Amino acid sequence: MATQFYSKRNLQFLLYEVFDAQSLTQYEYYQDHARETFDMVLDSAEQIAEKYLKPLLTEMDRKEPQLVDGKIKIHEGMFPILKKFGEDGWINAGFSYDEGGQQIPSTVLGAAAFIFQAANYSSSVFPFLTSGAANLIRSFGSEELKNTFTPKMYTGEWQGTMALTEPDAGSSLSDITTTAEPTENENIYKIKGQKIYISAGDHDGCDNVIHLMLAKIKGGPAGAKGISLFVVPQKRLEDIGDRESGLLSEYRTPKTEHRTTNIEHRLTNNDVITAGVYHKMGYKGAPIAHLMVGSNDNTFGYLVGEPHKGLSYMFQMMNEARIGVGMNAAAIGTAAFYASLEYAKERPQGRVISDKDITKPQVQIIRHADVKRMLLFQKAVVEGSLSLLVHCSMLSDLAHVTEGEEKENYDLLLDLLTPIAKTYPSEMCCLTTSAAVQILGGAGYTTDFPVEQFYREARIHPIHEGTTAIHGLDLLGRKIILKNGKSLTLLVAEIMKTIEQANQHETLKPHAATLMKYLGKTDTVTKHLLSLAGKDLEIFLSDATLYLELFGNVTIAWQWLVQGIKATEALQAGASGDDANFYQGKIHTLRYFYEYELVKVESLMKRLLSEDNVTVEMRGEWF
Amino acid sequence: MATQFYSKRNLQFLLYEVFDAQSLTQYEYYQDHARETFDMVLDSAEQIAEKYLKPLLTEMDRKEPQLVDGKIKIHEGMFPILKKFGEDGWINAGFSYDEGGQQIPSTVLGAAAFIFQAANYSSSVFPFLTSGAANLIRSFGSEELKNTFTPKMYTGEWQGTMALTEPDAGSSLSDITTTAEPTENENIYKIKGQKIYISAGDHDGCDNVIHLMLAKIKGGPAGAKGISLFVVPQKRLEDIGDRESGLLSEYRTPKTEHRTTNIEHRLTNNDVITAGVYHKMGYKGAPIAHLMVGSNDNTFGYLVGEPHKGLSYMFQMMNEARIGVGMNAAAIGTAAFYASLEYAKERPQGRVISDKDITKPQVQIIRHADVKRMLLFQKAVVEGSLSLLVHCSMLSDLAHVTEGEEKENYDLLLDLLTPIAKTYPSEMCCLTTSAAVQILGGAGYTTDFPVEQFYREARIHPIHEGTTAIHGLDLLGRKIILKNGKSLTLLVAEIMKTIEQANQHETLKPHAATLMKYLGKTDTVTKHLLSLAGKDLEIFLSDATLYLELFGNVTIAWQWLVQGIKATEALQAGASGDDANFYQGKIHTLRYFYEYELVKVESLMKRLLSEDNVTVEMRGEWF
Repeated sequence: MATQFYSKRNLQFLLYEVFDAQSLTQYEYYQDHARETFDMVLDSAEQIAEKYLKPLLTEMDRKEPQLVDGKIKIHEGMFPILKKFGEDGWINAGFSYDEGGQQIPSTVLGAAAFIFQAANYSSSVFPFLTSGAANLIRSFGSEELKNTFTPKMYTGEWQGTMALTEPDAGSSLSDITTTAEPTENENIYKIKGQKIYISAGDHDGCDNVIHLMLAKIKGGPAGAKGISLFVVPQKRLEDIGDRESGLLSEYRTPKTEHRTTNIEHRLTNNDVITAGVYHKMGYKGAPIAHLMVGSNDNTFGYLVGEPHKGLSYMFQMMNEARIGVGMNAAAIGTAAFYASLEYAKERPQGRVISDKDITKPQVQIIRHADVKRMLLFQKAVVEGSLSLLVHCSMLSDLAHVTEGEEKENYDLLLDLLTPIAKTYPSEMCCLTTSAAVQILGGAGYTTDFPVEQFYREARIHPIHEGTTAIHGLDLLGRKIILKNGKSLTLLVAEIMKTIEQANQHETLKPHAATLMKYLGKTDTVTKHLLSLAGKDLEIFLSDATLYLELFGNVTIAWQWLVQGIKATEALQAGASGDDANFYQGKIHTLRYFYEYELVKVESLMKRLLSEDNVTVEMRGEWF
Repeated sequence: MATQFYSKRNLQFLLYEVFDAQSLTQYEYYQDHARETFDMVLDSAEQIAEKYLKPLLTEMDRKEPQLVDGKIKIHEGMFPILKKFGEDGWINAGFSYDEGGQQIPSTVLGAAAFIFQAANYSSSVFPFLTSGAANLIRSFGSEELKNTFTPKMYTGEWQGTMALTEPDAGSSLSDITTTAEPTENENIYKIKGQKIYISAGDHDGCDNVIHLMLAKIKGGPAGAKGISLFVVPQKRLEDIGDRESGLLSEYRTPKTEHRTTNIEHRLTNNDVITAGVYHKMGYKGAPIAHLMVGSNDNTFGYLVGEPHKGLSYMFQMMNEARIGVGMNAAAIGTAAFYASLEYAKERPQGRVISDKDITKPQVQIIRHADVKRMLLFQKAVVEGSLSLLVHCSMLSDLAHVTEGEEKENYDLLLDLLTPIAKTYPSEMCCLTTSAAVQILGGAGYTTDFPVEQFYREARIHPIHEGTTAIHGLDLLGRKIILKNGKSLTLLVAEIMKTIEQANQHETLKPHAATLMKYLGKTDTVTKHLLSLAGKDLEIFLSDATLYLELFGNVTIAWQWLVQGIKATEALQAGASGDDANFYQGKIHTLRYFYEYELVKVESLMKRLLSEDNVTVEMRGEWF
């Protein structure tokens, strides 16, 4: 088993040297914090990852969750982990003091999550799903909803989920058919339907599951405009619905209360039946449920916010979830990178091309240029991705503590970057984990090494939280034209600023010029595609996935130039020893990215400027 | 479970319309055959695939081989399959009548193998491994070796293997340490060592395993020049070594004899111990063994051919094995393509971009341009690959029946194309199976559909029979400069011939011109790289993998133009109905390939012409 699974040095470089996370403490909301508290959070994450998560990585893959008597049984090693996440306050750490949280910036929490994910992706999702669900309640729910449900979610006793997908509504959420029928109480509805692929949708490591569920109120508008958001607990508080005044105020759990032994009997079944657990290629430790809701006409759901606004609430939380997915992908890619790096440094095989003397011992494979290429590829993708993800988290935190145009600009930039931050790591880490397998050769294909698991686990990310195609449409069909293209203007300004800074350094000038050139090419492609929008929508959007790939590639090239500037400055300032090695690694990976990755824009551009609409013209019967 | 797993129509198109396999029957060796016999072979393969192989696809993946009391137990469903392969003469079908074979061209046998592989890859490897091992014995072994070992290999009672890899010698075969110590009999040696990753290296579906094993005769030259080839049976014929006159002539099995019940007791253990069975990401149905040889100083091996020529014998058989791997990859890719095509035609989700009316029902996802793109991608790769593989098989058959310069030219062309035929399908089908998963979305990630299995199974091919990097070095460092570049000259002449033919058709002229252009670009890159060879070997070969990718891409573009010509001619000749659909599919996939795939040469070329040697300059301590 590989020992290193992430680089603390790189995380610190990004947080403190590149993105100046400590600057957040200038704002009132984060004023109690300092780099020291941030480091404590990260050290604590590392300790939990090392002690609890990483040792279970392989085992959770081999011993999948099983549905037994209607209940999903997860790996029992998860129980203490779930307890730990709750007790140590990870679930609500980002929320306000008022809510029992610690007001930790998402930049720092995201970095901590990255450590968990790199150690053991499946185990890392439980608390963050709860966090996301709780976030919806606290952002859009009534005081009663918050007080009733979030405290036990924060302690980890109750699991949270996002229950969106249905058998006939995956990418097309407008088509959900789960219904909500009003009851006498205007906040309470009877829910009926099916939900599939619900992560942590049921398991025996919690006392209750709180689904944040999309459903359509009967008689409401068709499509997305008729979707509402409900809290649908797996078990509801008993006597629910018998009282006029809302949600059982007497059963509200005091905020400070921790797990109690007598809570069970206060809960009663809410007719949310676990019909199945999905068996998957990877990500096996996480229980993904198929739920039947209201089969016995006995499921109650509590409306969150106003009727018919469910999708908009969900989407306001989506940036967070999507950046989370990008982070998952980058984390898995990082673990695979270090596993293959370790192997490459230890495994002797063959000789260098310039000295094939068979009587000399074999050399470590890291000496071979092609192995270094595959390692540089991984490093370029995972560290480039992480850089973008930290940047996005910073934008999110800054939007949280600023106002007016400043806040709007942060939000706009974040909105534009989100499809990239979700998709680039997701797509590319399928390829980087593949490179990790390749470096190990036959060994990499066996279950004796972890890289094959990383390869399988990476493959989920281009699918969940919006497939790559959906994000392509989001970017080209929506984000770049939003507010007259203001987001894009903001991004280009940011990139230009980086180019200017890079131009201060002789060694970076060629990279600055290259990025400038590709920025221009991107602009040419964007203008060309937008010119099609008025003529034929189908053709305009037919290669949105490729446009996303091009845009992502240039964005990560920008992130590498940002990193290259800091590394160059550090070397100029006299970095030595391990530090110098670290910065040299950054400089060379920047070079790699511009030589091997950024050039892919050439081919993408050629295609995107072409007039041949073969995918649109192709017919089903010709396949 | 998907119903279609390959296209008979496409196979017939390639065999008869494109490559004129029936022309082989003009040669004396194949004169007893006709298209009818070829079709019978293929029909028979399809029947076996449908009845025996395909039903076990999922089960063999779920119930892996296990090592029990020193013996690998395979899925019991394999037993009748192994019997069938032997009884029906699949193992020696390609060999001469003298050897009990049927003189079926490898073009036809390869196509039959493709059907088996597409139905169930793991189950398909057993007979072909035996075939390959027997081929080594019949090509280079003594009459006694042939007569002793091949008959029971042909009946499938004895399994054959290629035993090359060792713990410290995978890509670097020169470094094997398995030793062969001479005995009193000059043809018999005592063997000692370890072999790993031996496909079908031990299992309970056969009476004996015949390893074609590389070992070094003590006192021989260092490195590759000291490697000899031995037949090392798992069980030897009893009393072996006690007789002076070779290999137990009295125990030779008469050629016509089939499985007998009393053979077991004539066999005695040859001290080949199965130390382990590998558990793998995919390809799980095939038992891959770790063997300890001569641990008790009691393993005898029989020298094949002359001492120290083992590696050259092995490599003379390598083309076959490598084309076989390309075929495996293309077959798995094909099965995934049809599984995702079926899903895309059935699954309603979303609406076409030009009509988003939510009150209308959802459309099948095959209507979405991005889904068609992912289907076209798969079709372009798997059918382009299969075209090249059939072409290579034809070259092999033609080399078999011709002489002098004609034969030499076929051999040279085949040698040059082999690294492409092995690598292009292997690398690309990792990506096409990924596209298949993506089309199914969440469903594709679950074990409820076969695509995730195809994704896992595809991943072995860039590793075995020489990693992609090894083939890159083979192409750039050896094949293109062999005989003063005669192979390359021959290939370019073939491609030019295709371009000329395409120029006869107005609709194909643009594609002909594009291919011409990229052929020129390939030439520019080749000349640039060769100019580096004299200066710095390390730099010259540092991007050999990328050169292979570029070369492969252009080669498959050529294969698509070849297919496009035939399709165009068929449409001109008035093809209608399903036939017209088939040819339209070809034309549109050709278009797809030139629009989306061939353009990748632009980026590759840009990198390959660059002077930045970042992978060579990168150092281990900077990672």
